[in-house]
Amino acid sequence: MNPKSKSIEKMREDAVNIFYAGLEAVEPNAAVKNHCRLNDHRLSVGDRTYDLSKFNNLFVIGAGKASAPMASAIEDLVGQRITRGIVNVKYEHIADLKRVKLIEAGHPVPDENGAKGSGAILSLANDAGKNDLILCLMSGGGSALLPLAAEGLTLNDKQNTIKVLLACGATIHEINAIRKHTSNIKGGRLARAAYPATLISLILSDVVGDDLDVIASGPTVPDSSTFGDCMEIFRKYEIIDKLPDSVVRHIEAGISGKIDETPKIGDPAFDNVNNVIVGSNFEAVTAAEKKAKNLGYNTLILSSMIEGETKHVAHVHGAIAREIIKTGNPLPPPACILSGGETTVTITGKGLGGRSQEFALAAALDISGSEDIVVLCGGTDGTDGPTDAAGAVADSGSVTRAREMGMNPRQYLSNNDSYNFFKTLGDLFITGPTNTNVMDLRITIAM
Amino acid sequence: MNPKSKSIEKMREDAVNIFYAGLEAVEPNAAVKNHCRLNDHRLSVGDRTYDLSKFNNLFVIGAGKASAPMASAIEDLVGQRITRGIVNVKYEHIADLKRVKLIEAGHPVPDENGAKGSGAILSLANDAGKNDLILCLMSGGGSALLPLAAEGLTLNDKQNTIKVLLACGATIHEINAIRKHTSNIKGGRLARAAYPATLISLILSDVVGDDLDVIASGPTVPDSSTFGDCMEIFRKYEIIDKLPDSVVRHIEAGISGKIDETPKIGDPAFDNVNNVIVGSNFEAVTAAEKKAKNLGYNTLILSSMIEGETKHVAHVHGAIAREIIKTGNPLPPPACILSGGETTVTITGKGLGGRSQEFALAAALDISGSEDIVVLCGGTDGTDGPTDAAGAVADSGSVTRAREMGMNPRQYLSNNDSYNFFKTLGDLFITGPTNTNVMDLRITIAM
Repeated sequence: MNPKSKSIEKMREDAVNIFYAGLEAVEPNAAVKNHCRLNDHRLSVGDRTYDLSKFNNLFVIGAGKASAPMASAIEDLVGQRITRGIVNVKYEHIADLKRVKLIEAGHPVPDENGAKGSGAILSLANDAGKNDLILCLMSGGGSALLPLAAEGLTLNDKQNTIKVLLACGATIHEINAIRKHTSNIKGGRLARAAYPATLISLILSDVVGDDLDVIASGPTVPDSSTFGDCMEIFRKYEIIDKLPDSVVRHIEAGISGKIDETPKIGDPAFDNVNNVIVGSNFEAVTAAEKKAKNLGYNTLILSSMIEGETKHVAHVHGAIAREIIKTGNPLPPPACILSGGETTVTITGKGLGGRSQEFALAAALDISGSEDIVVLCGGTDGTDGPTDAAGAVADSGSVTRAREMGMNPRQYLSNNDSYNFFKTLGDLFITGPTNTNVMDLRITIAM
Repeated sequence: MNPKSKSIEKMREDAVNIFYAGLEAVEPNAAVKNHCRLNDHRLSVGDRTYDLSKFNNLFVIGAGKASAPMASAIEDLVGQRITRGIVNVKYEHIADLKRVKLIEAGHPVPDENGAKGSGAILSLANDAGKNDLILCLMSGGGSALLPLAAEGLTLNDKQNTIKVLLACGATIHEINAIRKHTSNIKGGRLARAAYPATLISLILSDVVGDDLDVIASGPTVPDSSTFGDCMEIFRKYEIIDKLPDSVVRHIEAGISGKIDETPKIGDPAFDNVNNVIVGSNFEAVTAAEKKAKNLGYNTLILSSMIEGETKHVAHVHGAIAREIIKTGNPLPPPACILSGGETTVTITGKGLGGRSQEFALAAALDISGSEDIVVLCGGTDGTDGPTDAAGAVADSGSVTRAREMGMNPRQYLSNNDSYNFFKTLGDLFITGPTNTNVMDLRITIAM
């Protein structure tokens, strides 16, 4: 077998280092500390500063898979000032905390622990007064980990409703409209409960475009949807007969004014609210770019919002890499293109893989035989599909090496078997769990 | 209905002007003249110069849909020096010529006219001597327009073979290997016939990456495939039983040395050959970029080699446009991103459209409601699918305007009905036939 050239080996090493630089910036503890500075009794968050000496109590609430290390960062920062705190996290996604109580709960399927924790969080927000400060720590998985059904509804009712919506092809925005209008805590209701306390929400975004309204169904964010919209969605997909009666009655009660609407833009509930994104795909991509620059590459951030079918998105990246080598566009070599977001894979085969490994395999075919190109794609949570890998590293020699080992790369791709392809090549990218999630990071290097 | 804003109107107008600037650079007559300069009796082509006074005869040959206007440019340039010429063109793709004879022939299905013309072209090349100069004008469609079956084979044999290869999923490179080894003129055989005459091949490229070996199956280019490769391809797809006997016997005869191999790199056949690409997607993209710069935009050539499923390629362009507006990456607004190549559409609906119109529709959905973004995608040949449009222009208000007119944009996309979508909006991009083809040009403007 042809060994990898020295140049390729170096590029692969660089790609891995660039990935870890991106990851470091969105590690939950670091992300919180990068955006919150304490100077004596003054806490700066984003572009606002809070005088902590003016607050009677400092409460910590939140939910999400990365919210335990976020709480740990807050304890490091203002530990002795915290009155008390409750944060819902996924089972075993914990940290060693002194003041904030963690409640382990079900994810992705919500459970009673999640509901109890959500109730406690809502009570704490309700009890907070005008001179209290609430720090809310939201991260990926926050929606499933804040499962507080509206009065008269059960968790089961909500889950059955979501199932029907998923089956009929409703969009994520439509599903979120329903989630918010069958919940006691989402769609800005947590902010309404906290009012008139001051509320700072620190958010680690795991959604493309960082839409605050979407992350964890926006518990501290104005809602743009209404009970009326919910009924229209039910009618549009003709699903009223398939939904739990209680849910349909609940939406009808909302329309007739018997239940409060979610708070909208301009609602006093948000007067004292500051939503700050502390970590996002764009921050990871930006930190990765900085590292690539330091390593001597010309760099370009393509976009942190890339979605679409993985192999076709890979084709575009492959075409850009080949153009770099052929004409020096969009930038001259040595070049590093950074991109992020979250693609999808339409599974047609029976193999094992994930979107990042499939991206690397599809790109490997496009760059095969070209001058030196390396492509690394990985999930920032360290998990790619149902595998132990975060992603994979491919280069312009991968396909040739695979063929020499008797593999047919196109067949592995059409069988969605990228895991076994890269496992055989020894080119899986394995990070282990990272405790964070800002979707995927893709690094394309052309020399 | 909301009218388009002044800013959007201006951006749309700019996009159209940028497209036409790209198109102008690859107009066949201009493309030839941009790459051939006559100074007294010295003809410069690419980086070589030829002293025309040293040649006894100047012959013109060629084939392709754009080869008539290319011949016209050559007549303008060196008209009185041309001894004679024969060029195969598609029916009605003609020009008013004085010295060069055009033979109209079948495309995309080859016919007897094409075969006769090919025979005459090969004879002319064969008859040319050491002190003769041959100008060969190749353009898109050249493969179908040079249908000269090898001895013992019929056109029908060749066509049936290609059908079997297409049906079994052979790659374009595999199909070309067979084409070259069942032809008397492709795969460098035209160059061998012309030797020892001097041969300048002017090529208007309609293939992604401008692989000379692929354009018109490379009649003047060294071939990297062999008769042995052809048999391996037959075995790989297990199609020997499905192929015409004559073709299988022909390949076997080649393997046993009874028929000459195609000429390879280093073959004397290429000693006096100069293959020059006079027009390509990259040239169109580069000219478009220049115009965009003149109009005041920050510009970026993404790649001229983009392939893949259209709507997913559109998603990537949409994501880049939104990133420009949100963070100023990959470049700050006002920004113009140029890209080229040729995407595919997997048809699942029953509507009317083409890949450029589908690109614009898919992009319209991605950029809907964003700040000002305009996307224009068009085929440089002026034809997009089975429609009278070259493509379409979409902007960040297109989806809203369409909904106000009662259209459901997602439904039009899933029905592959982009033509009727843009026709209703009044946003088709219609150029009429352009006499050239360097695939597609995509212009994305973000303000």
